[in-house]
Amino acid sequence: MNQTSASSSFPGPRGPVDHDIRDQIVAAANEHFSQYGYAKTTVSDLAKAIGFSKAYIYKFFDSKQAIGEAICANCLAQIVAAVEQAINEENLTPTERFRRLVKTVIATGVDLFFNDRKLYDIAAFAAGENWPSAQRYDAQIKRFITEILREGREAGEFERKTPLDETVESIHLALRPFVNPLLLQHNLDFIEVAPTLTSNLILRSLMP
Amino acid sequence: MNQTSASSSFPGPRGPVDHDIRDQIVAAANEHFSQYGYAKTTVSDLAKAIGFSKAYIYKFFDSKQAIGEAICANCLAQIVAAVEQAINEENLTPTERFRRLVKTVIATGVDLFFNDRKLYDIAAFAAGENWPSAQRYDAQIKRFITEILREGREAGEFERKTPLDETVESIHLALRPFVNPLLLQHNLDFIEVAPTLTSNLILRSLMP
Repeated sequence: MNQTSASSSFPGPRGPVDHDIRDQIVAAANEHFSQYGYAKTTVSDLAKAIGFSKAYIYKFFDSKQAIGEAICANCLAQIVAAVEQAINEENLTPTERFRRLVKTVIATGVDLFFNDRKLYDIAAFAAGENWPSAQRYDAQIKRFITEILREGREAGEFERKTPLDETVESIHLALRPFVNPLLLQHNLDFIEVAPTLTSNLILRSLMP
Repeated sequence: MNQTSASSSFPGPRGPVDHDIRDQIVAAANEHFSQYGYAKTTVSDLAKAIGFSKAYIYKFFDSKQAIGEAICANCLAQIVAAVEQAINEENLTPTERFRRLVKTVIATGVDLFFNDRKLYDIAAFAAGENWPSAQRYDAQIKRFITEILREGREAGEFERKTPLDETVESIHLALRPFVNPLLLQHNLDFIEVAPTLTSNLILRSLMP
């Protein structure tokens, strides 16, 4: 169903009607879940609210989870986009990029938590159940960490003795309380101090 | 009623009868919560199960939470005792003691989680609500970290540039996913790799 991206450039025409309808369902579900929560909403509720039949929705999505997945993917993509923007500014040292990664992942997650609580709850649920969107998000964060480490090692800013894989895994583990939406909500008492304390500890561990 | 095992751990005279009755209530509540869970049990249920009147229980404990607190304190004391034993063996270097701290805190917490799930749930609840018992537990773990760091700094094994307070706080934060019962349950996928990865990262950060 996802053939539009091949046939049209982004700001141009939207492509087949199917794609539009999928987006409409996701947008309406997003709104509905934001108001009533993910857990409490059934596909029937959603169908009524959107004005489509339940059967029609099932033509596009296998289950409520599939709709939740689409929303969650959007939501986690926001965090990834914010991190990407923060770390890819020009003229940053690997150390600075790493600090920005930590700071942005925490700030964006917290922002989502406080300003879009119901969506946040879907993301936390997805993280708890290890949905594919949550797995992709984790993989993306690991890719950012790997890039920064590679660059820092090449520049002689970070130590090179520890196998890169191990360093990436251990840093990802150390950041998990803030990267993972499910854990972040239990770490809100630490969000003031955590970016600095955690970045400093990790950066000390990276010293050549 | 598990009175014997409770009293045998405190050698010497037990003191007033009141103290015994408190212990009896705690032991019975422990048993009752283990079977039926903390959240679902009322003080009335507990009174019936123990064979005391509700009013009599309230003579000793202000609330269900006060009983839960006593149980939780016992439960967290088990983790502290296990850590204390593990790190205080003779002839350990500060590095070895630190590894043992991490390993033992994770292993004991996980053991509790799998073998005494209902008690674990009280501990997790206590951690979430930041009960005094959970605060004391956190403080105790921080004391262990501080001792090991001091010793390692004096021995020249750990770096001395970073203020000790900052190092303690950042290590405690890095260990929180495993020290804190509420977070540990969300990190069970990582308990195989976490002790080594996390210890290694922290020990690298401590290198002089």
